[in-house]
Amino acid sequence: MTGRGRPRRPVLSADLIAREALAMIDAEGANAFSLPRLARRLGVRTASLYNHLDGRAAVIERVRRLVVEEMDVSAFAELPWPDALAAWARSYRDAFARHPHAIDLLATTTISSPATLAMYEAVVEALARGGWPRERLVAVLTSVESFLLGSALDLAAPPLMIDPSAHAPHVPILAAALRAAHAGDKAARADQAFEAGLDALIRGLVAQLAAVQDQE
Amino acid sequence: MTGRGRPRRPVLSADLIAREALAMIDAEGANAFSLPRLARRLGVRTASLYNHLDGRAAVIERVRRLVVEEMDVSAFAELPWPDALAAWARSYRDAFARHPHAIDLLATTTISSPATLAMYEAVVEALARGGWPRERLVAVLTSVESFLLGSALDLAAPPLMIDPSAHAPHVPILAAALRAAHAGDKAARADQAFEAGLDALIRGLVAQLAAVQDQE
Repeated sequence: MTGRGRPRRPVLSADLIAREALAMIDAEGANAFSLPRLARRLGVRTASLYNHLDGRAAVIERVRRLVVEEMDVSAFAELPWPDALAAWARSYRDAFARHPHAIDLLATTTISSPATLAMYEAVVEALARGGWPRERLVAVLTSVESFLLGSALDLAAPPLMIDPSAHAPHVPILAAALRAAHAGDKAARADQAFEAGLDALIRGLVAQLAAVQDQE
Repeated sequence: MTGRGRPRRPVLSADLIAREALAMIDAEGANAFSLPRLARRLGVRTASLYNHLDGRAAVIERVRRLVVEEMDVSAFAELPWPDALAAWARSYRDAFARHPHAIDLLATTTISSPATLAMYEAVVEALARGGWPRERLVAVLTSVESFLLGSALDLAAPPLMIDPSAHAPHVPILAAALRAAHAGDKAARADQAFEAGLDALIRGLVAQLAAVQDQE
């Protein structure tokens, strides 16, 4: 650094744009995200972004790819579907927990990029191999994903999500349950709830599949 | 209306402030919500809001109360816990589906108002009556709520959430599953996924409780 002129910027690319967009969403929230503000952060004109990614939706898809790259689908090739689903679910929750502001944005925009589609293909392929009928695959995928997105939101919640202290005499069971559940350790409480919910959901899916196969 | 002067405004109250805040969040998103902007919408000074609600957190708690009032806990007094949980879950998802921008905000701020605490008390009271040990109540509540918040996000998603069209040959099972699942009817697909997931989760919770009781 000579102190003269601007510092050298890295060469603009689709990957760099997406990384800066994700950093911006992580720092400021999804609603603060816009192409003009992203361009300012990168020190370029908005039009320059279009040389690499075709508009806002394309930037968001590339951001999704970054988050999806943090998820692990390897278990689907190796384990029975209930165990593989649990392993993928844990990595999915962890990835979104690192990017809580991206949840709302990515949960409400259309998925179309090859990398993300490939992840979903791995999931439904394993479910189909496990015996799930084709017409139920999307429902299973969606309901598991709903649980995962909600669990990631819970990880982003404050340490004490329910505070009954001012009204404890009126909600005695809730107050006692909260005391029994964590004693102030928020991460342990969130992990316990996630593991219990995941266990219930997968137990239930195994039972549901058995019921479906009985009907056939 | 005489055309002269300002139209008469309704008298400011905590309820009116909360209703305007929820309307603002519904229309503009949670990140656009601030007390100064809320005051401008109401045509009052920000300081006037503090005569009725003690700051931002108090406004958000009052907004939560409005959303919670749209949920139905009556089933907990009448039905076995698995059926009551399902009935409450449907009304919970419907309420947040009407206020999708409130999900992120309410899922990440501490719950402390009597009305909302009373709803949770009704849920955990029914679970405890159904045999759930005290130290598991919060985990059951949290995991069901994670599924519900995620399902409400799914309702706010675009009609075609996964669009494999440009890459269908590379994701054949996903493409076939999507065709089989809905044929373009987004609401039917979301409802099917929600009902399937709710059935699996509650089946799984019933099995989990039986396993817990066996261990005792």
